[in-house]
Amino acid sequence: MSGRDAPQDRSFGTGPGDAGPKTLVILGATGSIGRSTAEILKLHPDAFTVAAVAGGRDGEALARTAITLRAGFAALADPAGLPALRSALAGTGIACAAGPDAVVEAARRPCDLVIGAIAGTAGMRPTFAAIEAGHTIALANKETLVCAGAAVMAAARRHGATLLPLDSEHNAIFQALGDADWDTIERMTLTASGGPFRDWSAERIAAATLDEALAHPNWAMGPKVTIDSAGLINKGLELIEAHHLFGVPADRLDVVVHPQSVVHGLVSFADGSVTAGLALPDMRVPIAHCLTYPRRIESGARKLDLAAVGSLTFEKPDLARFPGLRVAMAALQAGGGLPTVFNAANEVAVDAFVARRIGFSDIVRIVERVCEAANAFGEAATPAGIDEALAVDHVARERAAALLH
Amino acid sequence: MSGRDAPQDRSFGTGPGDAGPKTLVILGATGSIGRSTAEILKLHPDAFTVAAVAGGRDGEALARTAITLRAGFAALADPAGLPALRSALAGTGIACAAGPDAVVEAARRPCDLVIGAIAGTAGMRPTFAAIEAGHTIALANKETLVCAGAAVMAAARRHGATLLPLDSEHNAIFQALGDADWDTIERMTLTASGGPFRDWSAERIAAATLDEALAHPNWAMGPKVTIDSAGLINKGLELIEAHHLFGVPADRLDVVVHPQSVVHGLVSFADGSVTAGLALPDMRVPIAHCLTYPRRIESGARKLDLAAVGSLTFEKPDLARFPGLRVAMAALQAGGGLPTVFNAANEVAVDAFVARRIGFSDIVRIVERVCEAANAFGEAATPAGIDEALAVDHVARERAAALLH
Repeated sequence: MSGRDAPQDRSFGTGPGDAGPKTLVILGATGSIGRSTAEILKLHPDAFTVAAVAGGRDGEALARTAITLRAGFAALADPAGLPALRSALAGTGIACAAGPDAVVEAARRPCDLVIGAIAGTAGMRPTFAAIEAGHTIALANKETLVCAGAAVMAAARRHGATLLPLDSEHNAIFQALGDADWDTIERMTLTASGGPFRDWSAERIAAATLDEALAHPNWAMGPKVTIDSAGLINKGLELIEAHHLFGVPADRLDVVVHPQSVVHGLVSFADGSVTAGLALPDMRVPIAHCLTYPRRIESGARKLDLAAVGSLTFEKPDLARFPGLRVAMAALQAGGGLPTVFNAANEVAVDAFVARRIGFSDIVRIVERVCEAANAFGEAATPAGIDEALAVDHVARERAAALLH
Repeated sequence: MSGRDAPQDRSFGTGPGDAGPKTLVILGATGSIGRSTAEILKLHPDAFTVAAVAGGRDGEALARTAITLRAGFAALADPAGLPALRSALAGTGIACAAGPDAVVEAARRPCDLVIGAIAGTAGMRPTFAAIEAGHTIALANKETLVCAGAAVMAAARRHGATLLPLDSEHNAIFQALGDADWDTIERMTLTASGGPFRDWSAERIAAATLDEALAHPNWAMGPKVTIDSAGLINKGLELIEAHHLFGVPADRLDVVVHPQSVVHGLVSFADGSVTAGLALPDMRVPIAHCLTYPRRIESGARKLDLAAVGSLTFEKPDLARFPGLRVAMAALQAGGGLPTVFNAANEVAVDAFVARRIGFSDIVRIVERVCEAANAFGEAATPAGIDEALAVDHVARERAAALLH
């Protein structure tokens, strides 16, 4: 037999004890995941200390978070917010600074775990800094892996950094994997809620307003990821993320639409077995899982009662009505710099949609045209590092911006 | 961090290689699980050798199986079938014998894995013999654990035997457990299809015929387990089995009715995460999982396609319409010898139902009365070994038989 434990070799109630408080750095502390993390910490006042928090623009909100969490250091990405941050922290003894380098400094602080939850490309440098510091990082920032996956995974290996999947789908797959030998895995499947437009016609989706795109049926998330979800582009980004995080080839990755968002990810094996990760749709579940992995703590989330849920339904994603997923899968298959281009163009297009400058269906139209241009200009090489990735990102953003006029 | 692998520390396609053919002993080779095992072996002609096969009464069927599997030895439990077995094996070079000791001899043959699939109490001694031989045993015989769980688990530890769960529900839970620390487990849930009477009224269930009880909607199994399933008594036996196999306290075990039989078992954790084992209802899946654990092989079973299944539903079991589950849960809670008594009385009552001597609702009535008698007579001590368990079993059978007249 293998070295694994048989059922009877394990014992109930004798797992590893609490190893004392764990030191955290929370990047994206004022965002949706940062706030959920703070809620969990409130339930376990003695289990964690917070070395640093980092936020984007809102100095006052970051100061409140830093005070609540008794953080040692607060870093704001936007220098314009520094006066507000500084005045709100006056007399607290909490150090603060602003600008991208301050966020990178926060990411490098000694700690047991970094919560990497800065949304968008802005999260790339701080995440990379945490990797270079050899930290363990619970990664919710998709862009780091989507834009520079190969370079990031190589750096993680080089620096002995550990990445834990914080996205609900990837976290579910990580839990479903258990101790499986990876060569025995036939397929990984991410579920998609289908978003607010799941049963809408193509015409109605094309004419969707910003408010309609922001009305996600299951998940409370930031606006960027909510709009990405409405077009299933988010699921495309998650496929790319899974490809890098789990080292699974593109043709073994799959998406199934599951409107109840209870099953988040599945792993299929050659013998016909499938393991799955389930939970009610609440980000506190994967956050709590990462916070004390491999131990478990209460997350404050309601517990799943399948009899109360009653019915779980599944359907194939409709790539005709949701072309964003098709374009993302093509970028994943193409590999190299295409995912970087896809992500950059999408960020610009979503910003323009949020600014009501373009319609919903323009998002994917712009993304696809920028991907085509990158292919045509031979710019699809794999970025060798984060600087190359950001250069590819920059060009793609300019092309996307040009298409807005 | 822990000693577990992070996602990026694993690699696709570089798992352990094939360690050469694995030697099997198949107990219950002519039954449903034995036949499914043979189907899997046919798909992998070079991966297994069969040291011995054992069957119950049908000498010709056992001989055919032995010849097909090129077994070294064929043991028939019933000596009356020996002439047929011997003549069918004449000239094949396959040794044979009959009687309970012959089956025990088969169980002791040197091998890498014993498939323990003899139905009912008849499987106890051979399973125990395999445990004493220090074998790894894929256990489908519930009775060994239900009747003498404490003694069996102690013997397995003493002799260094490994038990792998072959029942679909327990196998699913074993897969869903992965590398979880057991003190982090909040609940284990077995699913029940609900059987053919799931939506029947209590009156209609009471008047059910043998043919109706044998018409299981999802699973092709032997008659005993099919009838047990119709009254959810099977699920009660499985709860008791899970209690011993996984060392999980009775109050952390749960049943949910799930008519599609796609989700077979679930493990719930403190943070709200749930991991689950899924597969289309086909015994070849858990058999294949056990055959090469922790490697995986093709089982021949159809692969699960959730979008094709469409909908999975869940409901609470109705203990009023299915009192057998209630009585089984009470026996599990009471512990000691009560599960042994429960199982013995149930075997006698099901035999009587199959012989059309009693009605369907008489099964649980007889079982409950025999359990009450065992309590009243102070016979509920934990059997210290297999002989004590069989003695308790014997008394309970006599009490149950007396109630038939």
